[in-house]
Amino acid sequence: MNPALANLKVVLVGTRYGGNVGSVCRAMANCGLSELRLAAPSPDITWEFAERMAVHATGILAARKTFPTLAEAVADCAAVVGTSRRGGLYRQHSTDARAAVPDLLAAAAKAPVALVFGREDKGLLNEELLLCTHVVRLPASPDYPSYNLAQSVVLLCHEFYRASLGPAALASPEEEVSPPASSKMRQTMLGKWRDMLLATGFTDEERATHMMEGFGRIFARGAKTEADMRILMGLARQAGWAAGGREPRP
Amino acid sequence: MNPALANLKVVLVGTRYGGNVGSVCRAMANCGLSELRLAAPSPDITWEFAERMAVHATGILAARKTFPTLAEAVADCAAVVGTSRRGGLYRQHSTDARAAVPDLLAAAAKAPVALVFGREDKGLLNEELLLCTHVVRLPASPDYPSYNLAQSVVLLCHEFYRASLGPAALASPEEEVSPPASSKMRQTMLGKWRDMLLATGFTDEERATHMMEGFGRIFARGAKTEADMRILMGLARQAGWAAGGREPRP
Repeated sequence: MNPALANLKVVLVGTRYGGNVGSVCRAMANCGLSELRLAAPSPDITWEFAERMAVHATGILAARKTFPTLAEAVADCAAVVGTSRRGGLYRQHSTDARAAVPDLLAAAAKAPVALVFGREDKGLLNEELLLCTHVVRLPASPDYPSYNLAQSVVLLCHEFYRASLGPAALASPEEEVSPPASSKMRQTMLGKWRDMLLATGFTDEERATHMMEGFGRIFARGAKTEADMRILMGLARQAGWAAGGREPRP
Repeated sequence: MNPALANLKVVLVGTRYGGNVGSVCRAMANCGLSELRLAAPSPDITWEFAERMAVHATGILAARKTFPTLAEAVADCAAVVGTSRRGGLYRQHSTDARAAVPDLLAAAAKAPVALVFGREDKGLLNEELLLCTHVVRLPASPDYPSYNLAQSVVLLCHEFYRASLGPAALASPEEEVSPPASSKMRQTMLGKWRDMLLATGFTDEERATHMMEGFGRIFARGAKTEADMRILMGLARQAGWAAGGREPRP
């Protein structure tokens, strides 16, 4: 795990619903984050709901830190990242979250960075945005631009988790498991298919080349690796063998 | 709204919790999607919870289509995209969701594409993955790799929504509101600051150049646009004026 993730502190301001707090804990754990801070949480939070939604992330919930104000919750942080979807004096200077993440992750390699999320109903107040060194936004449909609190958290934390991985960690395991098939292997496979198409009577010598153009096109789109070639050659061999004792189709 | 989004159908298989169904509806609306399909949903779904979590997306919930099996739910779709976090026979051929999205969005411009999400507890079964033309995964912490169902949905739908926007739509409004300041404007601003530092007695002629190196460095990091320059020049003018009637600091 990239150690910068441990410096990312999720700060929820004025949160009201326990289910959201618990869902936030789970999202944090999914994305490799561990420290939750609550600034001025509602006294009406139902902690039972929070525990239920945290599922296997109740450790984060139990270790949460609570502060009377946002200023106190972010006092030790070198960067304070507010999330906002609205326009306005400070908000117009927001940056697309994805574009902001690489620099912020680099900052978190050196010092704590706060990721601040506002109230379920009205987000962050202007005086809270003034505490922020960065304001980021998550693109959303203009018809319904307001993500649920825990959804905003998972979208932003997922960006950080992705950025914390090297490109190799995101590559398809497929590509690692089987190397790309060479042109030679591909030609061998197509030769075995030609033999099989003749043995099964699917085509004859006259039309075989034309037919193989079709299969060549299909396999070029769908079969890329050595493992793919072995599957196709195995079938050709087996079908040719099975057809050996029969008369070709007229 | 990119018309390809309307061709993306969210398909939930064997879903059990109404709250999840509702949260999925909201996430879909946030990301510009509109059609929800349920394949073999649990008979115990609490629709009241679903409505509560859908908030302003109850229209999607009300218009949902229900099918007895996944095969029937995706019958009209040209591409069927399964989501999976586990390894296994078909699962090892999964692709990182972000990498797969551009091609899938292009496919959705021509025909319906199903985005398929499995059960809360055990995801998609192997026979369901066989119906999929693509399998995608969302990177997650190895310590807790299982996202909540609605969180998976918002992460994937958000990728599609982003991809549906041009880069211009994601750019910072800041950059659109005020053009980058020219070098000339920057030099004018720094000249006014030099005057002000002298007028206020913050520095003297001898040390002014050295001091301006410091301010030059600070402003180069933080002040980029014409609007920034106007703010800084306004302050210099005002502070110089306010200092006019006083003796410089010794």
